[in-house]
Amino acid sequence: RQEYRTPRGMRDFAPEEKRRRDWVVGRMRTTFERYGYEPIETPSVELYEVLKGKMGEEGDQLLFKILRRGTELEDLRLGKVSSVTVNRYEDVVDSALRFDLTVPFARFLSAHQDLPRPFKRYQIERVWRAERQQRGRFRELYQCDVDGAGTDSMLADAEIIALTVETLLDLGFSNFQTRIGHRKLLGAMVESIGGQEYFKDVCISVDKLDKIGPEGVKEEMRGRGIPPEVTQNVLERASLKGKWQEILDHLEKSLTGTQQGERGLAEMRELFEALAALGVPEKHYRLDLCLVRGLDYYTGPVYESFVTEPAIGSITGGGRYDELIGRFTGQPIPATGTSLGLERIIEVMKEFSMFPDLGAGCELLVAAFDASVTGECLALASELRNAGLRCEAPLKAPKGLKPQISYAANKGIPLIAILGPDEVAAGEVTLRSGPKDQRRVARKEAAEEARRFLEELRQKQS
Amino acid sequence: RQEYRTPRGMRDFAPEEKRRRDWVVGRMRTTFERYGYEPIETPSVELYEVLKGKMGEEGDQLLFKILRRGTELEDLRLGKVSSVTVNRYEDVVDSALRFDLTVPFARFLSAHQDLPRPFKRYQIERVWRAERQQRGRFRELYQCDVDGAGTDSMLADAEIIALTVETLLDLGFSNFQTRIGHRKLLGAMVESIGGQEYFKDVCISVDKLDKIGPEGVKEEMRGRGIPPEVTQNVLERASLKGKWQEILDHLEKSLTGTQQGERGLAEMRELFEALAALGVPEKHYRLDLCLVRGLDYYTGPVYESFVTEPAIGSITGGGRYDELIGRFTGQPIPATGTSLGLERIIEVMKEFSMFPDLGAGCELLVAAFDASVTGECLALASELRNAGLRCEAPLKAPKGLKPQISYAANKGIPLIAILGPDEVAAGEVTLRSGPKDQRRVARKEAAEEARRFLEELRQKQS
Repeated sequence: RQEYRTPRGMRDFAPEEKRRRDWVVGRMRTTFERYGYEPIETPSVELYEVLKGKMGEEGDQLLFKILRRGTELEDLRLGKVSSVTVNRYEDVVDSALRFDLTVPFARFLSAHQDLPRPFKRYQIERVWRAERQQRGRFRELYQCDVDGAGTDSMLADAEIIALTVETLLDLGFSNFQTRIGHRKLLGAMVESIGGQEYFKDVCISVDKLDKIGPEGVKEEMRGRGIPPEVTQNVLERASLKGKWQEILDHLEKSLTGTQQGERGLAEMRELFEALAALGVPEKHYRLDLCLVRGLDYYTGPVYESFVTEPAIGSITGGGRYDELIGRFTGQPIPATGTSLGLERIIEVMKEFSMFPDLGAGCELLVAAFDASVTGECLALASELRNAGLRCEAPLKAPKGLKPQISYAANKGIPLIAILGPDEVAAGEVTLRSGPKDQRRVARKEAAEEARRFLEELRQKQS
Repeated sequence: RQEYRTPRGMRDFAPEEKRRRDWVVGRMRTTFERYGYEPIETPSVELYEVLKGKMGEEGDQLLFKILRRGTELEDLRLGKVSSVTVNRYEDVVDSALRFDLTVPFARFLSAHQDLPRPFKRYQIERVWRAERQQRGRFRELYQCDVDGAGTDSMLADAEIIALTVETLLDLGFSNFQTRIGHRKLLGAMVESIGGQEYFKDVCISVDKLDKIGPEGVKEEMRGRGIPPEVTQNVLERASLKGKWQEILDHLEKSLTGTQQGERGLAEMRELFEALAALGVPEKHYRLDLCLVRGLDYYTGPVYESFVTEPAIGSITGGGRYDELIGRFTGQPIPATGTSLGLERIIEVMKEFSMFPDLGAGCELLVAAFDASVTGECLALASELRNAGLRCEAPLKAPKGLKPQISYAANKGIPLIAILGPDEVAAGEVTLRSGPKDQRRVARKEAAEEARRFLEELRQKQS
């Protein structure tokens, strides 16, 4: 039945998967809050004017647009007219689903200018993008954004990077590295050899170094009409390897005198010194001036975390955007932040079995030997729940124990509490984890005994 | 600036409010999971065919419809054409935002027929309804749904009601009552005096008893052309007061012989017996045959929880819907469940100061006496975080302590850890909760001392 699908690129999450997602989100929140970031929420829908043009024309194409209410198209839906002529797009579209959490955050700040600054927020929510379908690309996906607004200090950038590294370590990632570039330094390099006019093209080309290699980049730059001496000179400096101090010292000679260069070098030094002060392990970050990132709105340092082994690419990305918020508030509010790609992170964690055993939600099923004890079973379930156990009671008149036992097995419920007329008469309960592990216990000690039993099962497993 | 609003009826949540919402949702989840309900998630967007017609024509009007991608309207957006003629509504609309979580759940089940049955799920997510604006009505809102599918036993209905009562008690509600009606019993009453043809009109009228009183209902029924003897007879029996056993015994005489009546009476007895077995406090539920509920798809018991004092109306509502899922799966799957209205619940909890003090997220701000100790401050913040404290570090070069102290005060951060050149030289930290409460402690004991300090502050407060 075609019509009962989910929309293309959008997914259902059954309990097992949903529990995994909740687990990852819970760990992230704990880390974000340990750094003092606070949760906010913004609407899924934003006015079309707010979103339009913020990701470039390609971005506008990716928006899921929402039909304005009460237009002539409603008459068409109701069959009152047989056709409708639309003369202006905005006559029928007034809003759209957000495509990221950065633009809504900027809009949010314009409406909440009273909040203390710097304002440090995190936001873990859905975004929507009508992208062409391919493996691992979804049209409805979660982003986990952490941003600090109201400070242009590199301390804020360093904190975001430290937080990113800690979040990934906490989730169990070990072979990853956050690459840190700087838009102004790349700009200064281009400027220092008189190639300013090619800056945008240089950015687009250099950013592909990772994917197409130095020869590929050179070819791309040639194709874009960038003079070979500019290409040669920029590529050489941008792909310098070594310790960050050495690279920055080396660049200093050629960049002194360019305004962007001096500022960029000072910022990078401050950023890397702060990373060291914060104790971020050195293996997890490095200077990489070829990193540019696609979005126009970045103005300073940019950063992306890559899983290095196996080489599956980027799982977080962000940077400083000192001008975007000003488009909404009127006055500039410098800001920096990153977005952790939940879908990618979960995909990797599943592929490499990084999830711990999250167990079934439910610990205990109360099963009735026959229909005569149904009421007693409900009462027992109530007693166990009041004692804090997660417990299921019969939801239909029982037809023997077998179907109840296999229901528990299917759901992964580790323990069954059986009541029959015998048990009821004796004031007892049979606790059962399998055919060979049954214990009859006093009903008033059932919760305590069940807890002990569950603990034993847990220890056996590990 | 008009264009930087949120869309009408949709809201931003700043940290304080978001923390409250998260707190309520967290408590609900804990209760739902104690009863063995499992979390699922479904897309915000559903195909138009899935949603269309499920809430009646009025419902279709309330849908936020999403524009199909790649139609001629895209050319209009790009200015490639100057007008577009639309001949079929479905040519330009292919999906919509969901208006509830029940229809998506039914659609979900058709795609997940392998899950163990009964399948007990909860889902706490957003829904969207383009309703006319009025106080307390939102166009983007959260619903908290708990449903059991795959059993027609009243044990499932009783469990949902028990769970609803427990959730509300746990949130701090005390003066509330869940009213329980039954569609089949009302149907049997109408049938027993030969008024079947008026059943729908009777439902619509009787459901308003609470709002417009018995005289209002009589007038409404007269207006709908229901014969006075039907009105009189149904109203008399539907508004019987007393213990549920007495009411059902009384009805038995007149309903025996009608098929719906016998089944309805047996179901209600089973339901109320199960509620007693589950230990649900009697003051929190009662039989009320005038309760009908608006939606067509209910087939058996229906229930709503009302806050009785002050009388602010319904905060949860649900019922049995044995036929809805079959529209998606092809074969019938009986189900029952309820929806807790998060927006209403939070509104009431705020109005009656039912929230505990949730505190600021952050426990500690590390403040720098001057710029010379910035690096040390970052290191200290790192040490405190590693010890598990929620801690903010400086995000800009400090201009004296004052602005840092007032930042902490604004955000409600209870403790400040101050480092200056003196402290650094001595290997110490100054912990400060106010001008009169400062303590200098050894830096390597700072985390432990901070924890003790925070505990003291907490005890002073309560």
